[in-house]
Amino acid sequence: MQRRSFVGSVIAASLLRPVPSWAQGDPLPSWNDGPNRQSIIDFVTRTTTPGGRDWIPPPERIATFDNDGTLWTEQPMYFQMLFALDRIKALASQHPEWRTTEPFRSVLADDRAQLAALSEKAMVDIVAATHAGLTTEQFRQIVLDWMATARHPRFNRPYTDLVYQPMLELLTLLRANQFKTFIVSGGGIEFMRPWAERVYGIPPEQVVGSSAITRYVMQASDKPVLMKEAKVEFVDDGPGKPVGINHFIGRRPSFAFGNSDGDQQMLEWTAAGDGLRYMGLVHHTDAVREYAYDRGSPVGRLDKAWDEAVRRKWTVVDMKADWKVIYPFELR
Amino acid sequence: MQRRSFVGSVIAASLLRPVPSWAQGDPLPSWNDGPNRQSIIDFVTRTTTPGGRDWIPPPERIATFDNDGTLWTEQPMYFQMLFALDRIKALASQHPEWRTTEPFRSVLADDRAQLAALSEKAMVDIVAATHAGLTTEQFRQIVLDWMATARHPRFNRPYTDLVYQPMLELLTLLRANQFKTFIVSGGGIEFMRPWAERVYGIPPEQVVGSSAITRYVMQASDKPVLMKEAKVEFVDDGPGKPVGINHFIGRRPSFAFGNSDGDQQMLEWTAAGDGLRYMGLVHHTDAVREYAYDRGSPVGRLDKAWDEAVRRKWTVVDMKADWKVIYPFELR
Repeated sequence: MQRRSFVGSVIAASLLRPVPSWAQGDPLPSWNDGPNRQSIIDFVTRTTTPGGRDWIPPPERIATFDNDGTLWTEQPMYFQMLFALDRIKALASQHPEWRTTEPFRSVLADDRAQLAALSEKAMVDIVAATHAGLTTEQFRQIVLDWMATARHPRFNRPYTDLVYQPMLELLTLLRANQFKTFIVSGGGIEFMRPWAERVYGIPPEQVVGSSAITRYVMQASDKPVLMKEAKVEFVDDGPGKPVGINHFIGRRPSFAFGNSDGDQQMLEWTAAGDGLRYMGLVHHTDAVREYAYDRGSPVGRLDKAWDEAVRRKWTVVDMKADWKVIYPFELR
Repeated sequence: MQRRSFVGSVIAASLLRPVPSWAQGDPLPSWNDGPNRQSIIDFVTRTTTPGGRDWIPPPERIATFDNDGTLWTEQPMYFQMLFALDRIKALASQHPEWRTTEPFRSVLADDRAQLAALSEKAMVDIVAATHAGLTTEQFRQIVLDWMATARHPRFNRPYTDLVYQPMLELLTLLRANQFKTFIVSGGGIEFMRPWAERVYGIPPEQVVGSSAITRYVMQASDKPVLMKEAKVEFVDDGPGKPVGINHFIGRRPSFAFGNSDGDQQMLEWTAAGDGLRYMGLVHHTDAVREYAYDRGSPVGRLDKAWDEAVRRKWTVVDMKADWKVIYPFELR
């Protein structure tokens, strides 16, 4: 809390003085100097300068962030998929038929070649088998338990350790300047909400994601529950992102950050509003500290959105060049 | 703004003194003294007293309000339906076939007997014909234009004048005590959001309602729009209310207010959480100043929810007895 208001004061103070004193209370210490870092500082300063041409009234300061690959790592596959695979293993004893039924057989046999080539249909089957037939509260607890115990195969750390320090600083900077920060992710809304407040400072009501149908059931005990069903309700990806933003938030963002083709329409929708807007992409260029992938990657492919970003002059963050630090644990 | 922080301080001060001085800075001046008014004051005091047994951490202070009949009038029919009927008339010249097709014929002929008996299917047809085939921004402007010009048939005032002063005071009191106030209404989300911030101080991202499918379309001009389609996406009524609360907010409310059977499940869901909770219903008992209706009304029927409120000891506000003032214009 101390940090936030300090950063806020620094920004406020910088508006009154001829030479902003960023150095003293750097709001983005994990970002290297350069045009990308500067573009963020410029945007925040211009949109929060009272009386300025680009000023945005505080209630309209909406910032949306993709999650997988933008706020945390998404390799070797989406963490929610790794969660689902672990759930298959945990539930296998109750489902003897899985030993001979695809895609479950491959999961239980840890057949990497098969798993790498899973079809969309197979993934939906895996998610349906692991995310449905539970109450929302049961599912929440399962997610929290997994987050507390599961470890990333390469970094051998809890998945929530693999969030990007520079993006945490960006979230803090925006909030210190009265931007309301939202997640707008293709990931499951019920998968993200249990930990997003602790990890990102983003409360459940500011998490937008994909969802399954839930059904209200009054139990015999006179206690109602919401049951998660094996039926997709909404896919918050690609053209679904502006739809989700309109549905959940009802305002157009002024600031949006993504990392893949699934974010292209969110950035287009942001850019199409009046006044100053910020559109950014994270380009994964650091195979040593994180991962390097773009046009050819099945997970988090960055191809068309990259071309559009270049054409429309959106910011493309070069992870290797722009970020001094990737993960918070590097600072400890 | 002055008002809010003053009310907040009054509550804060009341916690430190043996005798709360409500009289001096009454946070609910339009409510008559009595157990219903007192139940609100007690709930707010107990849940915001630091160290108290019923204290609720500020991020979990979620309050949800039905709209029609709870925050504003819903007679002689839902205002959104009156909007739709006006739209039919405005669009009639483009639809000569409506002169001979029901339900449009009855609308254009102002056939009150037919209109009073409209089937659910007829209402859906009317809403589809008037709410679809537009961009979300076009629809927003049409709603704002209608709100600026249309007049209520009995009160001859803009519909947004017909909000309840005691409920505005309640919203203000809750917000002054760090409750986040949400609308959770069976009404259309795109119908409420354009004016809810001005009228209730509730921003678009805190309005939950029924919705139609929208589709992202990139126009030839390189400008994207969201098109409203004639297909229901979500009905935020009855058992849909807990589903909508979970979907949009992702937290269980601590405080919920409704007025009809469509709010029963929202109150059940609120009541089923741990700790102190507040469940309230507005009972329309004042035919002179507003309307009197309950078990027999086709609009805003209060029957099963009333029985449940009595059984579970929820608050049932008696509009005639509890409210000194109904509408803000009475104060001018």
